[in-house]
Amino acid sequence: MNIVIIGAVAAGSKAAAKIKRLLPNASVKIFTQDSHVSYSSCGLPYYIEGNFADYRALLVRTPEEFEASGINVCMNCYVDKILPAQNEILVCTGEKAELVHYDKLIIATGASPRMPNIKGIERYRNIYTLRTVEDGVNIRNKMLQSKRAVIIGSGYIGMELLESFVKNGIHTTVIEKNEKIVPLFDSDMSDIIRDRIENSGYDNFQFLTGELASDLQGEGENARLVITSTGKEIETDMVVFCAGVIPNVDIAREAGIEIGTTGAIKVNKLMRTNIENIYACGDCAEKTHIVSGHPVWIPLGSTANKEGRCAAMNAAGVYCEFDGVLGSTVSRCLKTTMSMTGLTEKEALKVGFTPVSATVTKSDMVGYMPEAGDITLKVVADKITGLLLGGQAVGTVGADKRINALTGALLGHLTVAEFSNNDLTYSPPYSTTIDPLLNAMQILCTKISNRC
Amino acid sequence: MNIVIIGAVAAGSKAAAKIKRLLPNASVKIFTQDSHVSYSSCGLPYYIEGNFADYRALLVRTPEEFEASGINVCMNCYVDKILPAQNEILVCTGEKAELVHYDKLIIATGASPRMPNIKGIERYRNIYTLRTVEDGVNIRNKMLQSKRAVIIGSGYIGMELLESFVKNGIHTTVIEKNEKIVPLFDSDMSDIIRDRIENSGYDNFQFLTGELASDLQGEGENARLVITSTGKEIETDMVVFCAGVIPNVDIAREAGIEIGTTGAIKVNKLMRTNIENIYACGDCAEKTHIVSGHPVWIPLGSTANKEGRCAAMNAAGVYCEFDGVLGSTVSRCLKTTMSMTGLTEKEALKVGFTPVSATVTKSDMVGYMPEAGDITLKVVADKITGLLLGGQAVGTVGADKRINALTGALLGHLTVAEFSNNDLTYSPPYSTTIDPLLNAMQILCTKISNRC
Repeated sequence: MNIVIIGAVAAGSKAAAKIKRLLPNASVKIFTQDSHVSYSSCGLPYYIEGNFADYRALLVRTPEEFEASGINVCMNCYVDKILPAQNEILVCTGEKAELVHYDKLIIATGASPRMPNIKGIERYRNIYTLRTVEDGVNIRNKMLQSKRAVIIGSGYIGMELLESFVKNGIHTTVIEKNEKIVPLFDSDMSDIIRDRIENSGYDNFQFLTGELASDLQGEGENARLVITSTGKEIETDMVVFCAGVIPNVDIAREAGIEIGTTGAIKVNKLMRTNIENIYACGDCAEKTHIVSGHPVWIPLGSTANKEGRCAAMNAAGVYCEFDGVLGSTVSRCLKTTMSMTGLTEKEALKVGFTPVSATVTKSDMVGYMPEAGDITLKVVADKITGLLLGGQAVGTVGADKRINALTGALLGHLTVAEFSNNDLTYSPPYSTTIDPLLNAMQILCTKISNRC
Repeated sequence: MNIVIIGAVAAGSKAAAKIKRLLPNASVKIFTQDSHVSYSSCGLPYYIEGNFADYRALLVRTPEEFEASGINVCMNCYVDKILPAQNEILVCTGEKAELVHYDKLIIATGASPRMPNIKGIERYRNIYTLRTVEDGVNIRNKMLQSKRAVIIGSGYIGMELLESFVKNGIHTTVIEKNEKIVPLFDSDMSDIIRDRIENSGYDNFQFLTGELASDLQGEGENARLVITSTGKEIETDMVVFCAGVIPNVDIAREAGIEIGTTGAIKVNKLMRTNIENIYACGDCAEKTHIVSGHPVWIPLGSTANKEGRCAAMNAAGVYCEFDGVLGSTVSRCLKTTMSMTGLTEKEALKVGFTPVSATVTKSDMVGYMPEAGDITLKVVADKITGLLLGGQAVGTVGADKRINALTGALLGHLTVAEFSNNDLTYSPPYSTTIDPLLNAMQILCTKISNRC
């Protein structure tokens, strides 16, 4: 049995390790364009911040470890074509091209940073994106010589990088094209996040929202001025584009593999594409949202690991279903934890629910405890069915705890009434007698029915 | 409408406040033997420790606040009899006895500390239990003059008091009659808790397990020596009995109100007793365990609040069901968080399941984060149906997060397979790509079926 895997960050490396455990005698080959394998890209902002000195802490498995377990790793290897009719891929290494046979193929090509359409951007050396280990090392090295930075985009990566820069004393400007930062959240929650971060005690940063980075001006190899769509000019020593990612699906599309409505590779619950013996997993693959039932593309390291495992099992002949995702996320920026799961109110509306929501700001633990702080929770339900749809949380501690508490309820398709008396753990250092999540749920329940 | 409530800590005071909001014109009267109302008894160990200076921080509502909202509070009032045939209770205040009419009666008499059968114990002044605000104030005042203390019982209250004493420099001995501390947990988890606490960096305490406090010897008003069942002698300046509580049901039983198999007052989902117009809630009432379906008695402040609210609604004519509890708890002792929900393995066996479990010890967040520490998680399922039954967690941070994440799944009666790919939030400061809870769940899933 010849197993070929394209890509070796989260999904690809997880799939390789799992398949080798299931089929010790199979030939397992990984091809990656990258010069590192099996690393924690989510950890890059924490490396840049200086939480640990050696970037190698980010490496989960080395190529040598893979080789030692009998997995062949080809780094700096570009897969140019998938040829399903002949069960082969075309691999280019330097000048050399080679056809490699597969019995089962797992596509884990990941995603690439979205780059803006700015004329002449390629001429500058101080423009970065953050995706690979090299990106992280380059950004950290440049940061250490910089006084000012501009981050384009206020998604999670932009926000985490903001924390890294600000804690290193860099004067940082975040430019966000939407009117609100972290636009993944409902706009009322984005306001709360912004307010908390702006009152975090750090003052060496600013948000510019509703603005595009429309031009760059520089001196020689270095961009020195970011010019926004309203004509603002921001001086800087470096620019990092954190404006989202796009799935790497070109070779799959060319091979006749079906691409879903989200632009990622369409797979079934077994992580199989429309072509026999070809699986896709991780950031290049489309997911099903468990709450809406709709196809979504939410590229996350945690999902990539689970999908890689499931794709490997099915490729190895061991039945495994991956039901989908809830869109659960968490991120930290300057003491503020922001977390969500399920559908936001705006997403719920978009997919055809009749959303109703409740938002509370409460102490995250009993007020007499010295560590107590405020947490804001928003919960969303469908007014017609009473079905719980999702939640968003912002706070210093315990925000992600409340969001994780919702995940099982979303998996089980519970109604708000069913959850509103849930037995959450209570003790003064951990919550309040009626947990803030239950406060929110009871208000929401009353908006749906009187029997709450 | 005359509403009478007996008891005014968590359930009683919550019921009073809720009923007054629902029926502003009703007469609402509370009778309590206590000299405080509406306080956080769970906060007493934190007051004793010195987290806040004024015990009044523990008071949620004062009698004056109740009176201002039109609720009549009778403190130091002993209810001697419930007379259902005439819709009256007999109240004793000092020398005076009085019949008080009710249309609806809510019993929230709580629970009392279990006292050991030690001869002559009543003669000593330095023997305490911890239940009321006075208890807390007395223990703190005595602790400030003491060098040594003995705590009898290593349930949550005993463990929290241990933290308070140890942090105040008191040499503390905890005597536990079971072989393992915190016997609520499965014994393997108790071992882990003990190991963590004994390695917490504090050395002014010891556990004596498998020992009863069988005798006390003293000088005059003060017990000075605790003698255990194996003849050990422990010198001490004070003794606190934290050996569990028993529900206060005597007046209910005498009135013909049905007592359940657990010894607490039997109620239906509407919190009604077997007698019309009489409700019971909080620590005096029996609960239904949502996982086993069995009656249980798990007296907790969080449950008391929810039951008080629900009893009030039904008494006021607004339909409300309280489905039951999961037995979710959390406690902290010397940097260790211990938390559980659902059934332990031993409980699962006792109620007729065929339990199978998986235990993992993993980093609670990605290992390269400076704050990372180990967490031990045990998850329990039924081998025959695959149904998830419960979980236990021990760690520095994040233990309660994993337990709360299980609650929704227990409410929804999910199987292990359904939960094993749950979309929990991930980011390096919060968890690992595959959360330790999912690691445990995948091992458990494999023990049940191969399709994991």
